Amino acid sequence: MKIATYANARTTLEARKGVGKAFITAFRSGSVMGFLLAASGLFVLYIAINLFKIYYGTEWEGLFEAITGYGLGGSSVALFGRVGGGIYTKAADVGADLVGKVERNIPEDDPRNPAVIADNVGDNVGDIAGMGSDLFGSFAESSCAALVVASISSFGTEHDFTAMCFPLLISSMGIIVCLVTTLFATDFYEINDTKQIEPTLKRQLIISTILMTLGILLVCYLALPSYFHIYNMGSTPRGVHWWGLFFCVAVGLWAGLIIGYTTEYFTSNAYSPVQDVADSCRTGAATNVIFGLALGYKSVIIPIFAIAVAIYVSYSIAVFYGVAVAALGMLSTIATGLAIDAYGPISDNAGGIAEMAGLSHSIRERTDALDAAGNTTAAIGKGFAIGSAALVSLALFGAYVSRASLSTVDVLSARVFIGLIVGAMLPYWFSAMTMKSVGKAALSMVEEVRRQFNTIPGLMEGIASPDYATCVKISTDASIREMIPPGALVMLTPLIVGILFGVQTLAGVLAGALVSGVQIAISASNTGGAWDNAKKYIEAGNSEHARSLGPKGSDAHKAAVIGDTVGDPLKDTSGPSLNILIKLMAVESLVFAPFFAAHGGLLFKI
Amino acid sequence: MKIATYANARTTLEARKGVGKAFITAFRSGSVMGFLLAASGLFVLYIAINLFKIYYGTEWEGLFEAITGYGLGGSSVALFGRVGGGIYTKAADVGADLVGKVERNIPEDDPRNPAVIADNVGDNVGDIAGMGSDLFGSFAESSCAALVVASISSFGTEHDFTAMCFPLLISSMGIIVCLVTTLFATDFYEINDTKQIEPTLKRQLIISTILMTLGILLVCYLALPSYFHIYNMGSTPRGVHWWGLFFCVAVGLWAGLIIGYTTEYFTSNAYSPVQDVADSCRTGAATNVIFGLALGYKSVIIPIFAIAVAIYVSYSIAVFYGVAVAALGMLSTIATGLAIDAYGPISDNAGGIAEMAGLSHSIRERTDALDAAGNTTAAIGKGFAIGSAALVSLALFGAYVSRASLSTVDVLSARVFIGLIVGAMLPYWFSAMTMKSVGKAALSMVEEVRRQFNTIPGLMEGIASPDYATCVKISTDASIREMIPPGALVMLTPLIVGILFGVQTLAGVLAGALVSGVQIAISASNTGGAWDNAKKYIEAGNSEHARSLGPKGSDAHKAAVIGDTVGDPLKDTSGPSLNILIKLMAVESLVFAPFFAAHGGLLFKI
Repeated sequence: MKIATYANARTTLEARKGVGKAFITAFRSGSVMGFLLAASGLFVLYIAINLFKIYYGTEWEGLFEAITGYGLGGSSVALFGRVGGGIYTKAADVGADLVGKVERNIPEDDPRNPAVIADNVGDNVGDIAGMGSDLFGSFAESSCAALVVASISSFGTEHDFTAMCFPLLISSMGIIVCLVTTLFATDFYEINDTKQIEPTLKRQLIISTILMTLGILLVCYLALPSYFHIYNMGSTPRGVHWWGLFFCVAVGLWAGLIIGYTTEYFTSNAYSPVQDVADSCRTGAATNVIFGLALGYKSVIIPIFAIAVAIYVSYSIAVFYGVAVAALGMLSTIATGLAIDAYGPISDNAGGIAEMAGLSHSIRERTDALDAAGNTTAAIGKGFAIGSAALVSLALFGAYVSRASLSTVDVLSARVFIGLIVGAMLPYWFSAMTMKSVGKAALSMVEEVRRQFNTIPGLMEGIASPDYATCVKISTDASIREMIPPGALVMLTPLIVGILFGVQTLAGVLAGALVSGVQIAISASNTGGAWDNAKKYIEAGNSEHARSLGPKGSDAHKAAVIGDTVGDPLKDTSGPSLNILIKLMAVESLVFAPFFAAHGGLLFKI
Repeated sequence: MKIATYANARTTLEARKGVGKAFITAFRSGSVMGFLLAASGLFVLYIAINLFKIYYGTEWEGLFEAITGYGLGGSSVALFGRVGGGIYTKAADVGADLVGKVERNIPEDDPRNPAVIADNVGDNVGDIAGMGSDLFGSFAESSCAALVVASISSFGTEHDFTAMCFPLLISSMGIIVCLVTTLFATDFYEINDTKQIEPTLKRQLIISTILMTLGILLVCYLALPSYFHIYNMGSTPRGVHWWGLFFCVAVGLWAGLIIGYTTEYFTSNAYSPVQDVADSCRTGAATNVIFGLALGYKSVIIPIFAIAVAIYVSYSIAVFYGVAVAALGMLSTIATGLAIDAYGPISDNAGGIAEMAGLSHSIRERTDALDAAGNTTAAIGKGFAIGSAALVSLALFGAYVSRASLSTVDVLSARVFIGLIVGAMLPYWFSAMTMKSVGKAALSMVEEVRRQFNTIPGLMEGIASPDYATCVKISTDASIREMIPPGALVMLTPLIVGILFGVQTLAGVLAGALVSGVQIAISASNTGGAWDNAKKYIEAGNSEHARSLGPKGSDAHKAAVIGDTVGDPLKDTSGPSLNILIKLMAVESLVFAPFFAAHGGLLFKI
């Protein structure tokens, strides 16, 4: 977050010199975050493995089971980052907008607005720290899931340390590939016009994916034995060739690209889906909401097929180890992904700083242009995060099933089926909680901002300063307080189900939450992203069609603003939080699996 | 539908004599429909069984497998009724409201509005015919699923015709119980005040449930052998006592009551959830939409637990036969359920007729009061329909698994898991289609209504009559045309999956669609119902709180209208249509199961 704050300030300064310079600064800052995240995750994991080695010696199974704690830690932090951060940022955002923009009619990021600091901090907390911790959790968990399975496969039993470290090597190669990819954006091409920004950012994804495919091939060839065996749920171990794992990692990587581009198609205002949503604003807010919801539902189709293919290919080749390394493949270009993702909030905040510091209007215009491109690419990052969360959860599910010594999870068993249907309900329960939390937190923010405008004399005239600190405190307190119920739901469900209903029902719950949660997460973030960009489309007025809907303040624009406000908690709180729900429940079940297997299912024992 | 039209007219007439008379007429008409539905379903099924007996002789397995065609037929009609009917009614409703009420500022059901006839017909098509065909499909399918399993259990192998007919006997007892129950509403108590209507309708549910519990006990005791064996997926047949089946049927019946009352709690404006949603209109349409969506998500929790308990109990006692008779238990009070459900649209349409016929204002006031109570109870009916659809689909799933000779459906198999995740995606795809269909159909209706107002001279002044027929034709054509894509998705998915991916993946798809679809269906109809009643709450202004939000035309009321319009396709088209998706896919898979088992899975054979 410090980096983010620094990046905001730097980008503001560079915006003085032109769009190109500012873009490079914002993009580099995002990249640095991505690299730091991937590198520190890798470094700490490597140290942990080597430290544990001192204690466990050659008993590798125990060693790598102990490592699962690393995954649980990563995901617990993500709970704070995503859920808490999501509540923080949206409470501040909605609070600042409803009173400032709507009631008092002052511009966005105006320093007279008491919630403006909370709003800007919120962008960092939610969009940067939240996204980062979510992806870090995915990275830590998929590595751990792969390591657990590897330790009981031929890699572990034959003490082949290089092969054991295959997941870490994939991620290391990812860092190198992303470093090279970054040069394409900042050094090989030059950006002079804001129109070039979005294509440049999108090109980064393709470049990193192509380079990474070659990188994976290299790692697989060098690090893996030519033929080896992977643990297969108690059946005969699965024989795999080195190039088999290449396909596992590559299918994850390319599925990520497809998910990213589908997200882009459904949330960018350059394509017809968002334009249709914008057009529906003609008949009012209701049709806008209906079309937006329908768009989100529709946007689920291709990503789910991509995930299904990735699962089928990787699982068929190397069982759950294959799924885990497919997840790592999708996450291997995380540094590029985070750079693209963080780029938007950084540009946005840079604009905020420019506004608050009273810098010249041309600077704000430049940062706005940077921000517009960043909005679409932020949706791409969310697509990645959800897709990888699905694969990671499945890999963890596999590791859980192994540790709970289950050989089948049969839908025809009543215990599993009730788990499945209740599990599929959990994302709804969780979303209801997070959405309500944002609503409540935003309401107290609205009241505080109103109070300050009404009681501080000279605030509207700009001669008195508002009490920023109280607003920051409200967001902070609300995010921590309101995080408790959804957090408790995530943390307690595996414990209650495992202890009362046993490992079979818990397996059903995990599978149900996974298959249902991933759909709501994708549709919620795309719906929100589409509404956001439909509004921006009307505001920008860059085409005949867009101008016919605008300008700012027209009926169609008002309808678009309503959609955007509805989308805010969907895309920044409830949607992405579901990643945490499905991952954290799975990793917690994994950690407690042996206990549940031995002592759980009390209710069925009576 | 003829009955419905007749009932509308009769209710209008009786409204002259007072609320009590009108209530009895509306309620009796609804009941007649329910009885006709249950009785004709039962009668035709009984005839079919006896006719088939002539051909099949003592070869009962073949006989009852042939009966599955009855279920497929029932559900195919439901596809037209629910999906087509849903599109018809909402296209007409939205079209009539957007131009008539919003643009031209003329009251609801005004005869000058060209879409008014289409709108009133639509209430019958969607709310009466759609609901009726949906429940009829559930009834036909659960009976068939039970008969298929019974034919390969000891009932069938020992040629015990009375025991074989157990599902039909349950439904017959249901008709008798509902007849008695009806007397409570129309004869034993007298209604003088509109405030008594809602409690009376709700009391009907409890009375019928209690009486039916006794009825089931009687049927089980008389019709069943004291001990028998039920087919158990190829394992040793499950031994069951006669009172075991009593618990199966009863748990379904009571789960239905719980679902009904939960739906009532979340959609009636007498309780805090809807009042909170109404209150959120204070800060605008966006918060209304957010709170409404959160309410829908939350309303899923208790029904899912009720369904899970019903499944666990019934399955543990008598495997999938237990689930099928639990579904029949939930549906046994169908006549009362339909009476309560149809009561709303009948009263609504009676009001429409009064308005169009220019009858005195006091008549319209009376039908409005009748309608207000009917709105909540219509939501109860939807809850029943969804709950029973879930149980029916599961019973059909069981029958499918038996006929496809599967002994397990293992989530740990990649084929099943990809089916599960793709199946969980289908309800989203389907909903996107149906919501878009309503949007498109409504848009062409809006254009036609606008055209008529602009081109027919004297229409607004009431001296020229509008061209009602064109509007009816638009709704009719649109509903049939727009039904094709969602219909194709439902009908083709089992065929494509079965032929290309085989019975295992298809089992995954069915389970995935079931566990995901039931959640969306419940949340969509409750969200829609809550928005509808939040609007009515503000309009009625019956409390201090409601008056502070109103009156009609206030900002809060405008926000509530937006929520109501968003909710229309959710609660009347996309939500209830999902019942058809999960049931029709399951029954189609059941019919083709032997073919898929023998020739399917081409893609995996390569």
